[in-house]
Amino acid sequence: MSYLAQITSPTLVLSEGITRNNLQRMAIKAKNHGKKLVPHWKTSQSKEVGRWAREYGITEITCSSIKMAEYLSQEGWERIHIAFPFNVRELPRLNQLALRQRMSVQVVNPATAALLARELKAPIDFFIEIDAGYGRTGVQFSDSATIDSILSIASGCSNLEFRGFYLHPGHTYYGKDNLKIHQESRDALKSLKDRYIVQYPKLLTRLGDTPGCAVAEDFGEVDELGPGNFVFFDLMQVGLGSCNKEDIALCLAVPVVDIQLSRKEILIHGGGVHLAKDVLVQADGNKNFGEVVLLHDQGWTIPKHYSYVKSISQEHGIIQASEELLASIQVGDLLGILPVHSCMTADCMGFYLGLDGKIIDHAEGARL
Amino acid sequence: MSYLAQITSPTLVLSEGITRNNLQRMAIKAKNHGKKLVPHWKTSQSKEVGRWAREYGITEITCSSIKMAEYLSQEGWERIHIAFPFNVRELPRLNQLALRQRMSVQVVNPATAALLARELKAPIDFFIEIDAGYGRTGVQFSDSATIDSILSIASGCSNLEFRGFYLHPGHTYYGKDNLKIHQESRDALKSLKDRYIVQYPKLLTRLGDTPGCAVAEDFGEVDELGPGNFVFFDLMQVGLGSCNKEDIALCLAVPVVDIQLSRKEILIHGGGVHLAKDVLVQADGNKNFGEVVLLHDQGWTIPKHYSYVKSISQEHGIIQASEELLASIQVGDLLGILPVHSCMTADCMGFYLGLDGKIIDHAEGARL
Repeated sequence: MSYLAQITSPTLVLSEGITRNNLQRMAIKAKNHGKKLVPHWKTSQSKEVGRWAREYGITEITCSSIKMAEYLSQEGWERIHIAFPFNVRELPRLNQLALRQRMSVQVVNPATAALLARELKAPIDFFIEIDAGYGRTGVQFSDSATIDSILSIASGCSNLEFRGFYLHPGHTYYGKDNLKIHQESRDALKSLKDRYIVQYPKLLTRLGDTPGCAVAEDFGEVDELGPGNFVFFDLMQVGLGSCNKEDIALCLAVPVVDIQLSRKEILIHGGGVHLAKDVLVQADGNKNFGEVVLLHDQGWTIPKHYSYVKSISQEHGIIQASEELLASIQVGDLLGILPVHSCMTADCMGFYLGLDGKIIDHAEGARL
Repeated sequence: MSYLAQITSPTLVLSEGITRNNLQRMAIKAKNHGKKLVPHWKTSQSKEVGRWAREYGITEITCSSIKMAEYLSQEGWERIHIAFPFNVRELPRLNQLALRQRMSVQVVNPATAALLARELKAPIDFFIEIDAGYGRTGVQFSDSATIDSILSIASGCSNLEFRGFYLHPGHTYYGKDNLKIHQESRDALKSLKDRYIVQYPKLLTRLGDTPGCAVAEDFGEVDELGPGNFVFFDLMQVGLGSCNKEDIALCLAVPVVDIQLSRKEILIHGGGVHLAKDVLVQADGNKNFGEVVLLHDQGWTIPKHYSYVKSISQEHGIIQASEELLASIQVGDLLGILPVHSCMTADCMGFYLGLDGKIIDHAEGARL
């Protein structure tokens, strides 16, 4: 029986083949550049996708909360990193988790370092996150005083081992001068490594963002690459030049509930609680919450004629449809929607349906 | 022990007192106007909040998917309505559900009516959804041919009983001429009732939107009011004039993980996967993803000094903070965030924490 026959309501369909291609391509690229690939697992949040990843030599992952780390622990990962300024209220959970899974955390201020140093009950590693221009999180690249203060506090705690510097240049998502941002980020990490390597001979630098890692061909002296979204990709990454639409590994299967021929609109059950509300603005000024693909027993095809989700509310989506799509569609049919931001769509949905009809896990659906 | 001591990660805090006030106020308003209040339960999606609602005389609710209806069924509701163009792929689930819970559905095209008429195995009621200007869903108000076609198909099926016309004037959310939209919607429903009442003497008309129901003081001949968001309200409704900030019944409690004094920014664990990505644009042109309140053992207070979430990503939020907030906050503290769109935030979070420290259920957390 085709996986399609199982679908009655909005369902996130995942192609294992495309996912494996994405994993393999980035793994080969990292290897060719002599870098270790430590992907951010906030995109798939899946144990099963992790099993696929290990087949391509991936041994460590990153996640963005203690909850996600707990879910992904004890799956054979050498180490799980929480790439989020450590939340000190979760120290008891970290102490529990660190007993059964090697962990690293991210520190951006002395207050957090001091609490970790005082209350850690098991050994963990930490990265100092560096901000070299993104402006979201991290110690300012030029702020040596804060870096030194964190290191000084940590040096007094045998459970807290400095692992290196982590930099997420998220401003590549704005789509401007990505190679320039990539170069600046590399330069910042190199300069920090040069400054601290004598004191910390094993220190690592990790640079992570999909637009940069997908496009760059020179990673300089950076030790580790930490992109996340590349596992699935999405329309935002297509827009940034990180991938082609054919590389997007998942789509939301949605039932057609009404068709308005005069407005060329197709109403679907599929809204903000399924896709999330990330949006692209098209060249014509219209909003785009996802693009229509045609589902079949082996996956989906991207039609030559273009149709897209022009508006969404909590559960409703309205497709602006091509003539060709309108001519072929009926109430009760299923369509596929390529998401704008696959991490958010996956988090909303909480599980995946494989093309073989089997459920693939996601941390948010652990309760399933 | 205060509920606050339980919170280590982003947690949606719900005030039963404010929720009950909101329920009671709308129930009294409906009663004073001689209307039946049938609220849309997609906002709370909660059995427990339903128990509170029944204390104010509410006996029927609406939801927006079969999944939500299944979750809320067998809780003593006289009838649950699915206010979404019926998805024919879910007919087997509807047949199952209708055996144990009186249900009504919404029909907007003859194709769906025909399938229901052919395959229903238990009695259900249906509304025809009418579009009188919103442009999202529903039969065009002027399209008598489609209305007659649906009614003709249904008349041949003993399991399918016509209940009336449903109209959601969602364009009140654009915030322009809401009383004019309300009047047009009432007029449309009155005209339909006048046309069909002889043939269907028991037919009802239902009008549902929080901005209209909160503000209007004349509901004319409409039989039933179906607002949803009023149960919790949110910043969007404050902006539309539906409520005051003090009427917002929930806030997201978030841990502070870093403070950037020079930029007047507070970094919180609280992002798009918690708040959703609904956003308001302030008078100064800045985006607002939520507003800061100060948590205490009995709930929260709205400070005189204004701080708001100016940007979010998957798990991060950045607060633009007042001087007063910066002066009083430390890493590891908790802040409260009033949501822009409470329905979406609740759906992301999947449960609530009451001020007494007890968990309050939500359909999405049924798996908890």
